[in-house]
Amino acid sequence: MKKNFSLRTDLALEIAEAISEEKREGIEVIEENTDNPKIKVTTVKITGKKAEAETGKPIGTYITLESPCMKENEIAEHEELIKILSEKINSLVSLKKNSCILTVGLGNWNVTPDALGPKVISKILVTRHISSEIPEDIDENVRSVAAVTPGVMGITGIETGEIIMGIVEKIHPDLIIAIDALAARKTSRINSTIQLTDTGVCPGSGVGNRRMELSKRTLNAPVIALGVPTVVDAATLVNDTLDTILQELIDQTTKSTALYQLLADMTDDDKYELIEGILRPDDTNLFVTPKEVDAVVDRLANIISNAINIALHPGITKEDINRYR
Amino acid sequence: MKKNFSLRTDLALEIAEAISEEKREGIEVIEENTDNPKIKVTTVKITGKKAEAETGKPIGTYITLESPCMKENEIAEHEELIKILSEKINSLVSLKKNSCILTVGLGNWNVTPDALGPKVISKILVTRHISSEIPEDIDENVRSVAAVTPGVMGITGIETGEIIMGIVEKIHPDLIIAIDALAARKTSRINSTIQLTDTGVCPGSGVGNRRMELSKRTLNAPVIALGVPTVVDAATLVNDTLDTILQELIDQTTKSTALYQLLADMTDDDKYELIEGILRPDDTNLFVTPKEVDAVVDRLANIISNAINIALHPGITKEDINRYR
Amino acid sequence: MKKNFSLRTDLALEIAEAISEEKREGIEVIEENTDNPKIKVTTVKITGKKAEAETGKPIGTYITLESPCMKENEIAEHEELIKILSEKINSLVSLKKNSCILTVGLGNWNVTPDALGPKVISKILVTRHISSEIPEDIDENVRSVAAVTPGVMGITGIETGEIIMGIVEKIHPDLIIAIDALAARKTSRINSTIQLTDTGVCPGSGVGNRRMELSKRTLNAPVIALGVPTVVDAATLVNDTLDTILQELIDQTTKSTALYQLLADMTDDDKYELIEGILRPDDTNLFVTPKEVDAVVDRLANIISNAINIALHPGITKEDINRYR
Amino acid sequence: MKKNFSLRTDLALEIAEAISEEKREGIEVIEENTDNPKIKVTTVKITGKKAEAETGKPIGTYITLESPCMKENEIAEHEELIKILSEKINSLVSLKKNSCILTVGLGNWNVTPDALGPKVISKILVTRHISSEIPEDIDENVRSVAAVTPGVMGITGIETGEIIMGIVEKIHPDLIIAIDALAARKTSRINSTIQLTDTGVCPGSGVGNRRMELSKRTLNAPVIALGVPTVVDAATLVNDTLDTILQELIDQTTKSTALYQLLADMTDDDKYELIEGILRPDDTNLFVTPKEVDAVVDRLANIISNAINIALHPGITKEDINRYR
Repeated sequence: MKKNFSLRTDLALEIAEAISEEKREGIEVIEENTDNPKIKVTTVKITGKKAEAETGKPIGTYITLESPCMKENEIAEHEELIKILSEKINSLVSLKKNSCILTVGLGNWNVTPDALGPKVISKILVTRHISSEIPEDIDENVRSVAAVTPGVMGITGIETGEIIMGIVEKIHPDLIIAIDALAARKTSRINSTIQLTDTGVCPGSGVGNRRMELSKRTLNAPVIALGVPTVVDAATLVNDTLDTILQELIDQTTKSTALYQLLADMTDDDKYELIEGILRPDDTNLFVTPKEVDAVVDRLANIISNAINIALHPGITKEDINRYR
Repeated sequence: MKKNFSLRTDLALEIAEAISEEKREGIEVIEENTDNPKIKVTTVKITGKKAEAETGKPIGTYITLESPCMKENEIAEHEELIKILSEKINSLVSLKKNSCILTVGLGNWNVTPDALGPKVISKILVTRHISSEIPEDIDENVRSVAAVTPGVMGITGIETGEIIMGIVEKIHPDLIIAIDALAARKTSRINSTIQLTDTGVCPGSGVGNRRMELSKRTLNAPVIALGVPTVVDAATLVNDTLDTILQELIDQTTKSTALYQLLADMTDDDKYELIEGILRPDDTNLFVTPKEVDAVVDRLANIISNAINIALHPGITKEDINRYR
Repeated sequence: MKKNFSLRTDLALEIAEAISEEKREGIEVIEENTDNPKIKVTTVKITGKKAEAETGKPIGTYITLESPCMKENEIAEHEELIKILSEKINSLVSLKKNSCILTVGLGNWNVTPDALGPKVISKILVTRHISSEIPEDIDENVRSVAAVTPGVMGITGIETGEIIMGIVEKIHPDLIIAIDALAARKTSRINSTIQLTDTGVCPGSGVGNRRMELSKRTLNAPVIALGVPTVVDAATLVNDTLDTILQELIDQTTKSTALYQLLADMTDDDKYELIEGILRPDDTNLFVTPKEVDAVVDRLANIISNAINIALHPGITKEDINRYR
Repeated sequence: MKKNFSLRTDLALEIAEAISEEKREGIEVIEENTDNPKIKVTTVKITGKKAEAETGKPIGTYITLESPCMKENEIAEHEELIKILSEKINSLVSLKKNSCILTVGLGNWNVTPDALGPKVISKILVTRHISSEIPEDIDENVRSVAAVTPGVMGITGIETGEIIMGIVEKIHPDLIIAIDALAARKTSRINSTIQLTDTGVCPGSGVGNRRMELSKRTLNAPVIALGVPTVVDAATLVNDTLDTILQELIDQTTKSTALYQLLADMTDDDKYELIEGILRPDDTNLFVTPKEVDAVVDRLANIISNAINIALHPGITKEDINRYR
């Protein structure tokens, strides 16, 4: 584990936020207005190699939907989110009438906050087996969609990327959509943010270790990644607590004092020592999650699966959504 | 659906039983003695093309363990069954110290009697990811084992065989072990019989439709199939009821009477008409299963997973079994 | 177990059907027309002691909704069924604004076809704890509702009736609504019929043994029982098969022949012998259920829980239904 | 929620640790040696009213088993823990041959870290229904045991205490054993500590709000409570982080400086302001838990259920343990 906890997040938006505007070379941040004040849409574009290296996020587009309603049982807002998300998905891809799409649910179905991907997949309208067998049954309103939940390496003994690649080489999809649970930096973003990107994904980057990347480069087809931060790393929470407090104290201290220097000069390693005093080494395995995570992940899975179903099947209307509820 | 229900079974043993001994050309049936009268082991060998066509079972060996204890909570008998089954597995394969084995759990995890395969997989000792990353961690007592649950075509939209083939072409295992739920003809065999064969398997042949076969021919590696009948087709039960009753009546009827002829001449089609009078067409979807199937499938999964773990990992002892309980 | 399998059903309708119209003394059967031809509503009234003894069903009203759509994903029909069922519930009870209702989910949550009750309870809008703590939060549109899943005696070691009675004596509800899985005689009725009655229920009468009754007599409050047959007893299926075949044969036999007498005179005991020849004693534990029972029970739970929510909370509209989907 | 987060723990041991030895009036802390250095047993006795008020823990005995092995798959240590725990249970109660024991699994089965109680109950050897019906079947090796999972008030709408009291008044047990998930202060204690006490329990004190107490006073029978901390409150973690850092800084600051005073004088309210700057109000709902909590809770449930089974049924031996695994 790298010693500096300070940026344990999968959200391009949080990485951009951490960089002061004037320093954002090759990083565009565009905020959008939606009809609903409760829903915020922000697009982050990584446009240059330098920005890629700095942020650790590949060149491409990262669209973030934020709403406190996601985790609540707010049907009306959910349907708005479904509409916006399906439009955003279509804005990132160009599908033909006969395109075949493979949806992939990443993550460990035995670990509730990591089960988002598998849960979304269980609600995807799967049609590939019908369209390939009895084409006349599929009118032009439905595309050929397949759905798999490869599991995680600890369960299968196989790199998730290898499994996906094996399947891709058999069915040759025109598009891959991967869904995964992510990690955020701010607890306020847990289960309240959906990130959509055209840059692919590294399985297990959220709750786990980074693995072989799933992207156009590795799979020879465009890869859309959808994710929701369902946890905050406990060490990240402690680290941010530390930063906040240090800042508080610095503000209260006259620049002249020796202590001001002591605080201002505190390095990441110094911080790491402090954090280790609070969290045991094996506690880097701890994360912060809300009590009702099981119910919330179900709601998020409904929103994302319905948005995908509507985006992929031109004939599916809001009216049909409940079928897949 | 073929009109003649009369042989809806995946057990080579039941197919052999249905053929009178003198007619069993190319079919060997060998009964074994075990120390425990409650455990019966029978080997059926299909040796010729004619037998293959007649029985619908590929040329090869079919070993059947039968015991009423399987479905009960009889730990002592379970451990005997684990021992016998692991020995039988090893009798069908020859593994090298560095062989890599892929275990595959066939079936639908959402349908309890069809979830045997996925449940077994969840208890397999998976080591491939460790052995490939840090060899020194793996002593010579543990082989490289991977485990996948591909799902069923209705869920994924992809032929299960395609998924397995894709994975096999990536990791090149030396042996594939597939676990599946089966269908039996006799209700007394439900959850009381384990069939082990070296002929491979057709996913979904148990609770579902026959699909692309998994065998040495399709996967270029030997395929061992392990299965337990967890259901009896309702139509099969009704049909057997019918046969029993007709026989009863024939026995009570003097050969001279017209009715004797009527009964004796009754064709499969006649029977089918009768059965349709009892079961609606859409009822061919019905099966017979015991009330406590959920608990029983867990027990069967313990027996089979432990037998596989012991067969594949020479260093694993009976003492270690509980770890995977 | 009583030797005569011939009437293993919890549906008053099936019992009435088994009695020829002229013999239906004290049994009224009223068929209703609904706007939807796919939905059939029948009311059976047991009005006299004699009929009570004959049918084994207590004096009272039994309303049956039948529709093949229940088990399918037919949202429109589901909403019609919800509307009709909620109206029928209100037709059997008279609630005051401040009435307190206890809903009880009977059955074993570990046995899929028996888990209907617990699944319904998980979708009930529970308000009693709010209304008792902060009354102003509860407007006149919501009644005080509690919900419990007592489990089954095999799991708790306690008569389910004792548990319910203990809770009732603590919270003194004005109405008890019990939901349970039932057994039907005809496989065509599995998961296609909802029975609603004001006579209470005997926990475990469906998938299990009859237990202490839950009724006004035992709980000092009216008890509404809602149930769906999720299984057919395997012995019942075999028995009905037998009856059908015997009838077929009787019809084909001239009354003069000895065999006609043999068939016509066949007693229940004779039949029982035959059935025992087909089903082993321990197979009386077997039942017939459809493959996709897990998904179907979820749909039935949605219909019933929404109907109850609407019936109990005057302010809840069809618009709100999805909240509890 | 009370403003001072500083002691959010259910462990008497952690409360005692927080009080300097000289101040521990009416609080005894006795450490025990076990054969296994990995297992630590500590007994805390609250002996006086003053200590009761100070600690917020009722007068009585609190036995704590600590071992890092609990959460791992260490069968040998698990069996030691089962042995020690069953002995400790028996040390707190005196059972007659014909005593009836009610076991109660507190907590919300839908929230993984709160599901410990219900999971333990699912593994308890339940005998009351057998012993009451066919006494001769129960030899003197088995006591009469019942088991219930009442759920939580948010799900039932009923005070958990009311449900238990209602059941207790029906079956009149001689002993109640309640199992619940707890909250700890130190992350290192998560899933590594079992607390056993004779003072009863307040349902929901762990993951939730304090409710009506279950104790001899309210139930007229002795109540043993068994619990494991499965979470740390996120606010507690942040608060302790804060304390650690402030201490660090105080140590580095000369007593003369104004800042030293600023730090030293910082009140709980000041701290609370800081914490609110880091955690949003609704984040008081957040907790810290390990990634593999689902698997770990299963292991803990095995240990506790087996210890209870052995403690209650004199005839049950270590050999039988696996039956209930």
